[in-house]
Amino acid sequence: MKTLAELSYAIKTRRISSEEAVGRALGAADKWQPRLNAFRATYPESAALLARQIDNASEEKATKPLCGVPLAHKDMFDYPGHRSSYGSRIPQEVPAKTAATVVDRLEAAGTVTVGFLSMAEFALGPTGHNTPFRHCRNARDPERISGGSSAGSGAAVGAGIVPASLGSDTGGSVRIPASVNGITGLKPTQAQLSRAGAMLLSPSLDCVGTLARSAEDCGILMAAASGRDLRDPTALSGAFAGNGVFDGRAADPGKLRLGFPKDVSDVDSDVLIALTGATLDLERAGVAIDDVELTDVSHLHKLADVIQKAESAAVHRGRLSERGADYTPHIRRRIEPGYFVSAATYIDALSQRELWLQRFVEETLAKVDALIVPTVGVAVPTVEETDEELLGAMPDLVGRMTRWTRWLNYLGVPALTVPCGRDRNGMPVGMQIVGRPFSEARLIEIGMLFQTLTDWHLDVPDLFSDPPRTSTRQDQIENRQHA
Amino acid sequence: MKTLAELSYAIKTRRISSEEAVGRALGAADKWQPRLNAFRATYPESAALLARQIDNASEEKATKPLCGVPLAHKDMFDYPGHRSSYGSRIPQEVPAKTAATVVDRLEAAGTVTVGFLSMAEFALGPTGHNTPFRHCRNARDPERISGGSSAGSGAAVGAGIVPASLGSDTGGSVRIPASVNGITGLKPTQAQLSRAGAMLLSPSLDCVGTLARSAEDCGILMAAASGRDLRDPTALSGAFAGNGVFDGRAADPGKLRLGFPKDVSDVDSDVLIALTGATLDLERAGVAIDDVELTDVSHLHKLADVIQKAESAAVHRGRLSERGADYTPHIRRRIEPGYFVSAATYIDALSQRELWLQRFVEETLAKVDALIVPTVGVAVPTVEETDEELLGAMPDLVGRMTRWTRWLNYLGVPALTVPCGRDRNGMPVGMQIVGRPFSEARLIEIGMLFQTLTDWHLDVPDLFSDPPRTSTRQDQIENRQHA
Repeated sequence: MKTLAELSYAIKTRRISSEEAVGRALGAADKWQPRLNAFRATYPESAALLARQIDNASEEKATKPLCGVPLAHKDMFDYPGHRSSYGSRIPQEVPAKTAATVVDRLEAAGTVTVGFLSMAEFALGPTGHNTPFRHCRNARDPERISGGSSAGSGAAVGAGIVPASLGSDTGGSVRIPASVNGITGLKPTQAQLSRAGAMLLSPSLDCVGTLARSAEDCGILMAAASGRDLRDPTALSGAFAGNGVFDGRAADPGKLRLGFPKDVSDVDSDVLIALTGATLDLERAGVAIDDVELTDVSHLHKLADVIQKAESAAVHRGRLSERGADYTPHIRRRIEPGYFVSAATYIDALSQRELWLQRFVEETLAKVDALIVPTVGVAVPTVEETDEELLGAMPDLVGRMTRWTRWLNYLGVPALTVPCGRDRNGMPVGMQIVGRPFSEARLIEIGMLFQTLTDWHLDVPDLFSDPPRTSTRQDQIENRQHA
Repeated sequence: MKTLAELSYAIKTRRISSEEAVGRALGAADKWQPRLNAFRATYPESAALLARQIDNASEEKATKPLCGVPLAHKDMFDYPGHRSSYGSRIPQEVPAKTAATVVDRLEAAGTVTVGFLSMAEFALGPTGHNTPFRHCRNARDPERISGGSSAGSGAAVGAGIVPASLGSDTGGSVRIPASVNGITGLKPTQAQLSRAGAMLLSPSLDCVGTLARSAEDCGILMAAASGRDLRDPTALSGAFAGNGVFDGRAADPGKLRLGFPKDVSDVDSDVLIALTGATLDLERAGVAIDDVELTDVSHLHKLADVIQKAESAAVHRGRLSERGADYTPHIRRRIEPGYFVSAATYIDALSQRELWLQRFVEETLAKVDALIVPTVGVAVPTVEETDEELLGAMPDLVGRMTRWTRWLNYLGVPALTVPCGRDRNGMPVGMQIVGRPFSEARLIEIGMLFQTLTDWHLDVPDLFSDPPRTSTRQDQIENRQHA
């Protein structure tokens, strides 16, 4: 059993009880923890109690789409009684009273929250490194990065500890960990999912997103979590305002036209080869693949950087002046330059957004349903070679990791990443399917088509499996450190 | 005949033709021009043509609420074939092709646009001074200021050249000229009226508003001009989303409770006396007047200043770098400090807005329907004593003029100014009626009540009257300058 859809069906048909699923997820969380460091907190008692209630309430079981399924989320969503760490030494001052809207909605759909997951400090960083709590590690190979900032979400779902997770994506923070852990991740249209009760980083770019083991699973989560929210007036009803049940189907390849950029620069050759292979698979199935001219991605990346710097400086001002010493120095260095961004430059960057989006939609996407681009343009690096603390500066490799994701936060368009191959080290390569605003349902259907044609998404451990017995060099190092 | 409602009724009942009304408005515009300098452009031919069409189309006449009424607007609204001056030496590069939505809607309701009116350079300045085109002058006394930035709107409506006009209000630019010219002005809830096709100054604060000769007239204009607009997604439907016909009635005094601040500081005694008299009139009619605690107005003023500085710097960046020499130096000096506002400070000011609004609504307005405050806290000054060009610096008097208006742009709430007395020089004093967001219809009804109890709003010349024969000292100076 690998996916959320399968587990949900198994619980509904009573092949497994919710209590057992929750127990196995928490067992797996414990066993994988020394290897991945994916969890920040677990709630075994309350989860078991809720699971038993669900198992006993047979009527409810039949109606709720995600009844009894154990999930864990990035440690930045409010949850009653829980103090979010935000991956930092400065957790929430008091435990939250109300759950973040998205978590609340998933629970209303029947999910059981078993815990909260590792993340980059204040969501700043695409690698999964974390100084206060130590690094989160890749589900496939603990010497390699888990990606970030939704590091634990990528690792835990990749390892099969839970079938899905909520993350957040300001510059790639859902898509990068999904890609490097070989799973499927969706960054919806800007503000499609409510951000009420979620940590702020850069409100104009912040997006709540989903990490799961198939495109269909992302659709199931979106159907349950989306919709208008009085607590976040920016949250839109969009394409998922139905009854909470996902009814998407794999796209018809004969009616599908996808764009692929003429010129894909700054991408490792093994990533490019995997992507080309994926487009050939699609073409063989009848999908039309067109060459398209791409907008100046690096310019949009810079505009996103201006907005993120300015807004995160504003968001952190109070905390940084009171608790500056509790920030890891290189994280602080990411925030402080924001104080030197002028308001006029910031407003310029914001006000150009509509024009760039218009160009992207009317030119790049003019003749195609969606665009194919890499998710991460580099082969999955090791923890060591991307360690800013160790290396004293941000390695070029880290800068290159967000090249293909961040511009899309500037545009505000939805992007789905699906696994599509392997790099030189046998690590997963992700492919982004990018569309017009509010086209996430369509992107999921394209992802579903790809996942009927290929098996890359099934190249994951079964849910709740034990970690591999073979101990790696990294395990030994960690064990020695913990001894 | 004094008001828009009366003129509109007279045209409908054929006591006067639209052609005659338009002709008389244009005649009055010419005669008053040497005295007031209220007009920047007139369109006699197209206006006469349109008026004749309206006179001949009898069916249309019966259905359109404002059929055949001549209006003129601040010279910052797009109008086909017209190049807006923005009160500057840098007019629109090419004539507009489409009318601003608000002008378009008023024309769709039957109004005839006869011309465009003087304004402060780029709407920067509350007095009506203008270096490129010379100053606009008060309808009652040309030695005194017309107020700004919608200077010509205040003067032309005050003099009776046209019965009403559209202006814009970023910090008081509708309410100040309405107040000093003895007329009624409405700044609606932030973004209630579409800003598509209107000059930008500070988009978070900019508001299109109406200047007219009664509260009822403001209601008639709002009903015709408001409603959703695809060209400006921020434009709200609000309280005026009906069928374009105003159906407000004077508020019932027995059911009305108004707040008056316990502590009104920095206000000239004659202004305070006029306001107190007005509240006594209301009280005698049965209105309950409560003392209320006021928010820290000067702090909100500062926050508005941060936002306006930052946004106007961004808005003017391109123009200022290309055409800097064409800005009047003291206008340029108002814009340039904006480049030194940091993005974080700007974002802070924006993000505090909701909290201050909540406090204003839940504390200040907790027990009352609306709040009474001064519009302009000083007796109407002369052109000479507020002339920055002449005096080399901004006189303190000019800074004090926006004290009671600007904080309300920060809060985004609606405010109606009605004439309520006279100052030491016999010049009009205005009273602001301030309410919750989207309460403009209610504010108009309160204004209508006040205008059934008092006659201050009728203390204006009949529509289309000639200017007084007596020549003032200022006329002589001007005439000498023009000779």
